[in-house]
Amino acid sequence: MEINDFLNHTSEWLRGTGPNSDVVISSRIRLARNLANVPFSHRANKKQSEETLQSIEAALSLVEQLKKSRNFHLSDLDGIDRQFLIERHLMSLEFVKSSNSKAVVIEKDETIAIMINEEDHLRIQVLQSGLNLFEAYNIISVIDDMLSKQLSYAFSADLGFLTACPTNIGTGMRGSVMLHLPALVMSRQINRVLAAVSKLSFTTRGLYGEGTQASGNFFQVSNQVSLGHSEEEILQNLNGLIRQLIEQEHQARQALITDNRALVEDRVWRSYGILKSAHIITSQETIELLSMVRLGVDLKIVKDIDCGAVNELFILTQPAHLQKIEGRKLSSQERDAKRAELVHEKIAKLEKK
Amino acid sequence: MEINDFLNHTSEWLRGTGPNSDVVISSRIRLARNLANVPFSHRANKKQSEETLQSIEAALSLVEQLKKSRNFHLSDLDGIDRQFLIERHLMSLEFVKSSNSKAVVIEKDETIAIMINEEDHLRIQVLQSGLNLFEAYNIISVIDDMLSKQLSYAFSADLGFLTACPTNIGTGMRGSVMLHLPALVMSRQINRVLAAVSKLSFTTRGLYGEGTQASGNFFQVSNQVSLGHSEEEILQNLNGLIRQLIEQEHQARQALITDNRALVEDRVWRSYGILKSAHIITSQETIELLSMVRLGVDLKIVKDIDCGAVNELFILTQPAHLQKIEGRKLSSQERDAKRAELVHEKIAKLEKK
Repeated sequence: MEINDFLNHTSEWLRGTGPNSDVVISSRIRLARNLANVPFSHRANKKQSEETLQSIEAALSLVEQLKKSRNFHLSDLDGIDRQFLIERHLMSLEFVKSSNSKAVVIEKDETIAIMINEEDHLRIQVLQSGLNLFEAYNIISVIDDMLSKQLSYAFSADLGFLTACPTNIGTGMRGSVMLHLPALVMSRQINRVLAAVSKLSFTTRGLYGEGTQASGNFFQVSNQVSLGHSEEEILQNLNGLIRQLIEQEHQARQALITDNRALVEDRVWRSYGILKSAHIITSQETIELLSMVRLGVDLKIVKDIDCGAVNELFILTQPAHLQKIEGRKLSSQERDAKRAELVHEKIAKLEKK
Repeated sequence: MEINDFLNHTSEWLRGTGPNSDVVISSRIRLARNLANVPFSHRANKKQSEETLQSIEAALSLVEQLKKSRNFHLSDLDGIDRQFLIERHLMSLEFVKSSNSKAVVIEKDETIAIMINEEDHLRIQVLQSGLNLFEAYNIISVIDDMLSKQLSYAFSADLGFLTACPTNIGTGMRGSVMLHLPALVMSRQINRVLAAVSKLSFTTRGLYGEGTQASGNFFQVSNQVSLGHSEEEILQNLNGLIRQLIEQEHQARQALITDNRALVEDRVWRSYGILKSAHIITSQETIELLSMVRLGVDLKIVKDIDCGAVNELFILTQPAHLQKIEGRKLSSQERDAKRAELVHEKIAKLEKK
C-alpha cells in the first residue's frame, strides 16, 4: 500500500456509520507506552531511538491485527504526505516536528495507527465511526497485550504506565470523541455546554487535536485525567458525558426545527448553494458550509445526498488531500480554486445519482 | 389603469436600455414649480391646497404627453400602494408624510410622474433609461411650457422660479443619474470618487433619493446648484461628470477582470448561487446580490440572463411589490420568505429559456 492508496477509500472516522453517527463522527482510543530502560524520545540519542524503532517494529510485525498494515518511515515522507496523514488523523502534529527514527504503522482500513518515537516511544491509536469507545478499547487492549509480551514497558506499580508528559501517566490512555454540534452552536448554548464539560475534567479541542480551534461545529472531547482511575472507569465517564451531549444536541436540533425551521432550511440551502457556486473557497469555509449541509442531511432537509458523501468531502477538500489528488504541490490560491472545482464535481455526481 | 397594472411592466428606469446602460441605470429630471399668489404647500390652508390641486389637475388634463396618464389621489392610496409607487420612483418619501389634497399623475409608461402639493405645488419628473439627460429635459420642457400657459408660476426676475426650499430656487431643476458602480466599490476607489463628486458641487445619494443610503453599489448623482446657471449649463456639467464616472467604472471593471478574474467570477457566482438557494432573504441583501449578478451579466460572466431580467428582480423584490404580487399585507418575516421564493421562480424561468 502506498500513501496514494488512501485516496481511494474514506477514513474510518469519516464513514458516517456506527452508533449515534448523526452527532458522533468518531471515537478514538490512544495509549501511550514507553520502553523500560530507554530514555524518553526527547532524551534518547540517535542510536537509542533507532534501537527503539527497530524493537517496536519487530514487535508490531507479530501483531495479528496489523497484518494488512503498512509501515511509513517519517524520513521517507515529504511535507504533503505528512500533512495528508495528519488530515486523516493517522499522525499527530507533534510527531512531524522532527523526523529522527520515526515511523507510523497504519492498518489498511485506517482503524489502527501506531506512531513510533512520538513524544512517547509508542502511541497506539484505534479509531471507530460513531460512538464506539468500548469497541475501540477492546481492539486496542488486544494489541497492547500482545505488544507487552514482546516489549518491556516502563511501568511503576504505584503510578502505572510512565509517560513523557505527566498528564499521561497512569493508564496512558486518552479516549476522544469527535462530535458534530451545529444545533448547540446555532442556538448559542455551546459555550455553556463546553464550560460544563471542562468543569467535569474533560477537555474539548478542534478537529486536529491539541492546539487546534473548533471549526465547522466539530468538537473533540477527551478525558483529562489518566491517573487514579481504571481504563473502564475513564471510558464509562467519558461515554456517559458524550451521551448527555448527544441528548442536548438532539434537543437543540428539535427546538431549531420546531421553532426556526425556515431559518435552518435557509442556512442549510445557502451553504449548499455556495458550495455549488463558489469558484474560490478556503478549507475553513468549506468545513463550515459542509457542516451545515451535514446538519441538513441529518434533519432530512437535504435528501439527495447521504452523510458519507458529505463526510468524504470534508477530508478530500483538505490542503494535502487536494495536492495528492492533483499530484503536485499547489499554492494556497491554486488550492482554493481547485477545492471549489472538486466540490462542484462531487456534488454534481451526487445529484445525478 | 389601476395601481396593480404597474406590476405587468418594468419601470422605464429599470429597463436596462438606453445609452451607457451597462453603468447608467436611469436619468431623471425634476422641476419644482409653485403657483403665484398661493402660499407654499406647508403654509397653505386646506381650502388653498384643494384649490391648488384642482387648478393643477385642470392644467395637466390639457397636456398632450399625459393623455395616457392616471391620476391617483394620495388619500385613496393605502400604505402598500404608497410604498409601491415610491419603490418605482414615481413618488417621494416626502410626499407621503401627509395626504392632504395631494395627487400624483403618472403617464402609463412611467416616464412622466407629477406630484401635486408635495413640498412644492408641482413636482414634474421625467425618467429615462440609461444616460439620457437631454432627452429627459426635452420632454420635461415641453410639459413645463404647456403648463406655464395654464398656470401662473411663482417667478422672480432676479431669482428665477421660487421654491419652498431655497436650494431649489432658480431653475427649480434637479438632474439625477442613477449609476451602478460595483467595480469602483470592489476596488475601493469609490470613496475617493464620491469625495471628488461632492467637491464639484454635486451630491450623491442612495437608491431612493434624499436621506437614503447607497446600497447594492447604486449611486444617484445630482446637481446641488440650481441657481445662477442655465438648465443647459447644469445638465452639461452633470452629463460631463457622469461621462467621467462611466469611464472610471469601465477602467475599474477592466482592471478587475484582468487582474482578478477568478475573484470576480467567485463573487458573481456565489451571489447567483445564494439567490438561487436562500429560503429567507432581505431586500437589502437581494439588491447587493443582484448587483453582483448584474456585474456578471455586464462582464459576460453570466450569459444565460439578460440585464433587463436582473433589473426586473430589483424592483419586484421590494417590500411593497412583493405585497402587491401576493395581494395582501405581509410581515417582514413573510416577505423575506416570499422574496426568496419569487427569486427562485424567476431565475428558474430565465434558466429554462
